[in-house]
Amino acid sequence: MSVTAPNGWLAAGVAAGTKPSGALDLALFLSERPASVAGAFTTNLVVGAPIVVSKPRVAAGHARGCVVSAGIANVATGEAGIEDAVEMARIAAEACGVAEEEMLVSATGIIGRRIPREVVEPAIKDAAAQLSSAGGSLAAEAILTTDARPKTATRAIDVEGVRVTIGGMAKGAGMIAPRMELHATMLVFLTTDGGASPEALQRVLADHLDRTFNSISVDGCTSTSDTVLLFANGAAGVDVDDDPAFAAAVGDLMEELALAIVRDGEGASKILRVRVSGAQEEAHARAAAREVATSLLVRCAVAGGDPNWGRIAQAIGQTSGLVLDPAAIDVRVAGVPVASRGAPTGREADAAAAMRATDEVSIEIELHVGSATWEFVSSDLTPEYVTFNAEYTT
Amino acid sequence: MSVTAPNGWLAAGVAAGTKPSGALDLALFLSERPASVAGAFTTNLVVGAPIVVSKPRVAAGHARGCVVSAGIANVATGEAGIEDAVEMARIAAEACGVAEEEMLVSATGIIGRRIPREVVEPAIKDAAAQLSSAGGSLAAEAILTTDARPKTATRAIDVEGVRVTIGGMAKGAGMIAPRMELHATMLVFLTTDGGASPEALQRVLADHLDRTFNSISVDGCTSTSDTVLLFANGAAGVDVDDDPAFAAAVGDLMEELALAIVRDGEGASKILRVRVSGAQEEAHARAAAREVATSLLVRCAVAGGDPNWGRIAQAIGQTSGLVLDPAAIDVRVAGVPVASRGAPTGREADAAAAMRATDEVSIEIELHVGSATWEFVSSDLTPEYVTFNAEYTT
Repeated sequence: MSVTAPNGWLAAGVAAGTKPSGALDLALFLSERPASVAGAFTTNLVVGAPIVVSKPRVAAGHARGCVVSAGIANVATGEAGIEDAVEMARIAAEACGVAEEEMLVSATGIIGRRIPREVVEPAIKDAAAQLSSAGGSLAAEAILTTDARPKTATRAIDVEGVRVTIGGMAKGAGMIAPRMELHATMLVFLTTDGGASPEALQRVLADHLDRTFNSISVDGCTSTSDTVLLFANGAAGVDVDDDPAFAAAVGDLMEELALAIVRDGEGASKILRVRVSGAQEEAHARAAAREVATSLLVRCAVAGGDPNWGRIAQAIGQTSGLVLDPAAIDVRVAGVPVASRGAPTGREADAAAAMRATDEVSIEIELHVGSATWEFVSSDLTPEYVTFNAEYTT
Repeated sequence: MSVTAPNGWLAAGVAAGTKPSGALDLALFLSERPASVAGAFTTNLVVGAPIVVSKPRVAAGHARGCVVSAGIANVATGEAGIEDAVEMARIAAEACGVAEEEMLVSATGIIGRRIPREVVEPAIKDAAAQLSSAGGSLAAEAILTTDARPKTATRAIDVEGVRVTIGGMAKGAGMIAPRMELHATMLVFLTTDGGASPEALQRVLADHLDRTFNSISVDGCTSTSDTVLLFANGAAGVDVDDDPAFAAAVGDLMEELALAIVRDGEGASKILRVRVSGAQEEAHARAAAREVATSLLVRCAVAGGDPNWGRIAQAIGQTSGLVLDPAAIDVRVAGVPVASRGAPTGREADAAAAMRATDEVSIEIELHVGSATWEFVSSDLTPEYVTFNAEYTT
């Protein structure tokens, strides 16, 4: 049910024509009543024009909806690209009858290319005409690029006897149209009918962002368009501002969508969960987990079912700023100890068998220099990933 | 002629039996007279046992030679690995009749596995018995792992009417034995018959290291064993301590060997030269050039002949600490402008044709925020790289 699962939310998905396949490529969603919003955006120094336009609107704390185009990301397109994004939001706001500054704009797809206004503008009007409380599924489909499948999730909680619903949709990292070259941008849109101030929504996002969406990787490339938005319209008639159950449910939903993105990663055949424990600081655990999970050699080894302790040690040692005692490291791969106190255990064959028996390989690293932990989730690296991303398209 | 090109240098290469193929896997080289030495080693926090043993000996400034094993890197092997490395150097020193602390030890190959003493020790004695001034080629062959071919270079300069020779050999990043899983460690050994203090040698290395070996990448994984050693034995009878021609010749030779390593990179089909200019600081130019050259998406695009300005912009923007005006960036791919002032030029087709016509693709990025420049060299990413590194072996 996606973003229309909560009360008072409408959505639509239409085919504007920016995808050569003719698939749905433009989504619009809208709250029937005023709503609060909070958001998080990429830290890439080159940001998409839609982010330039939407970020100050999100910072103002109130927005009614968002128009999302998938096919062309409108990034690295200069001043003209900014004007295109402003115009897309203006037309969507007008068609929905809301103030221009309460309509957000988002995009994903090919970067470095302008979005054709003559194609998307009529599509925005079509989408506005088709908005419905059943439109969440079409919207979730319309935001996809190389994804193999839509990624949606919902949660419902009870707040003072009132049912509050949270809905979400995400896209990222698939390979549904192998002749297209689409940047694996992550877009996540979350809605609720609970009532909440923008500040409360921002706190909930901030509490969960680092352990969920900021702890996944498909290819180590930080997109220019990554966006997470959380809207609350209060249609349920109850406030969730400081409700821990609400915060937990949002966090849980974020984790589900983050994992769904990795599972749908380009060329991925196995999930890789890297857990670092016993670090001196949380930042160290996080950096080391990221280094191991994004290492080309470790990811190739996972693809090959090889419990390669040497490559894991190499990646740990490459972690900038890590406090490390190489002679203290213990490592388990797929549950089997492969290194103890920094030296091999000789159990590679057992670990290899365990790796081959699962499609979710864990690497557990105990550093024994503190108590901080972090988990980072990625996938194996396959020849299919490379072939897919080497296809000529632009 | 490798490391035996200068006067007074002997070398040998033998097959100890640590490579399943039975190829040469143990090299030894020695100066007939006392020599100065300088060195540079990996910054990985996990370092090979040979580095633990050799580093203080290099710091002392005087060494006569080095025993190098290729097959097993002796890294992440605990206390026992250190003892193995000490013992290898001790046996080599004894067989060569030099002081134990003047013999260095180095290794490359599988990491996380112990080196079998009973296999390498007799081989060290064999190598010592076979040392000769014609042995440089065999030594250059014996240090290879996944390399397709030996990498050697020599330079000769005239100092006060005296001929001074510099020789070198390097290994790294090939795929000569596709069933082997060998860590792509870089080892470089340089020798000269010029006379020089350890301090002068260290200055020469330091002056050239960052722009040569520290500006190449095959897979972005910093090895636990990377080693560059520069020896000078003075056999030519002239000092080169502060001779600019000597420094320039060593720098030139380092650049040649660095490029040879990238050309021989696992799975590489094209060289990628990324040049960043107009940066505010040299560190910025360097970081941005590295980010673009090691980006999976950019490297896939180069494999596919795709002048993808969007992926280049994404990688530039991901550079930590970069001072950037996205609206000022100009980019040329294979000499063709693909972006001007941060926006696409529409000349993708021309650039694609130019990329396909060369096996050395350049990406020139002008940031227009300063005058610092840096060049970083890598290669495209091919399915062959992934297949090779996913082969099950340990």
